[in-house]
Amino acid sequence: MSKDEQAIRNLIETWCRETEAGNLDGVLPLMADDMVFLTPGRAPFGKKEFEANGRASAGKAQVKVQADVQEVRVSGDLAYAWLKLAVTVTPEGGAAMEMGGHTLGVYRCEGGRWVLARDANLVM
Amino acid sequence: MSKDEQAIRNLIETWCRETEAGNLDGVLPLMADDMVFLTPGRAPFGKKEFEANGRASAGKAQVKVQADVQEVRVSGDLAYAWLKLAVTVTPEGGAAMEMGGHTLGVYRCEGGRWVLARDANLVM
Repeated sequence: MSKDEQAIRNLIETWCRETEAGNLDGVLPLMADDMVFLTPGRAPFGKKEFEANGRASAGKAQVKVQADVQEVRVSGDLAYAWLKLAVTVTPEGGAAMEMGGHTLGVYRCEGGRWVLARDANLVM
Repeated sequence: MSKDEQAIRNLIETWCRETEAGNLDGVLPLMADDMVFLTPGRAPFGKKEFEANGRASAGKAQVKVQADVQEVRVSGDLAYAWLKLAVTVTPEGGAAMEMGGHTLGVYRCEGGRWVLARDANLVM
């Protein structure tokens, strides 16, 4: 496995663990400033909206995320990863909700550091 | 605009026009043999299933596809394109159905020719 592929797999793992820890400040540096999230039935949104949503929902639910990496490919300063995600969200005092689906993410190497830049998320 | 970006934009345009013409044999060469389609609420599928679906539905509806290219980026033999699609499907003797949404596609240059290889499609 190349150094770049390993870096991207580490980023994915860090994203999941920081999300589970509710540590938004650990997730934000993993994405580009011009990040674009594409999700079903909703207009594309960026880093600021992701952050605002994260702050608004902080502490309201426990989240478990398992990312099963299907594929990572790198060419120069561009890469993509296809993930199969299993997400469990347990609201405070509520029942656990299980969601699953795939994501296709585009990563960019910026000054030697990989970040997620575009993400199509099909988790429902 | 680079030669590669232009080639990918041409591929997208050809895909739309061949789809509208109902010419599946014009669409299949535009995708990699190991193509993966990711769509909401459905298991990933490949070129053979795409072809089987296309043959099964041939002539049963008129399709209009408008692709508004949001972004194309190329690095070496890898590229991605973010599209905003507007699709109108008019079944024989039925009313037109309008759908819309975004796609994130990964393209690969194979022997000097660009093909779509991975596609996350959020059109609903």
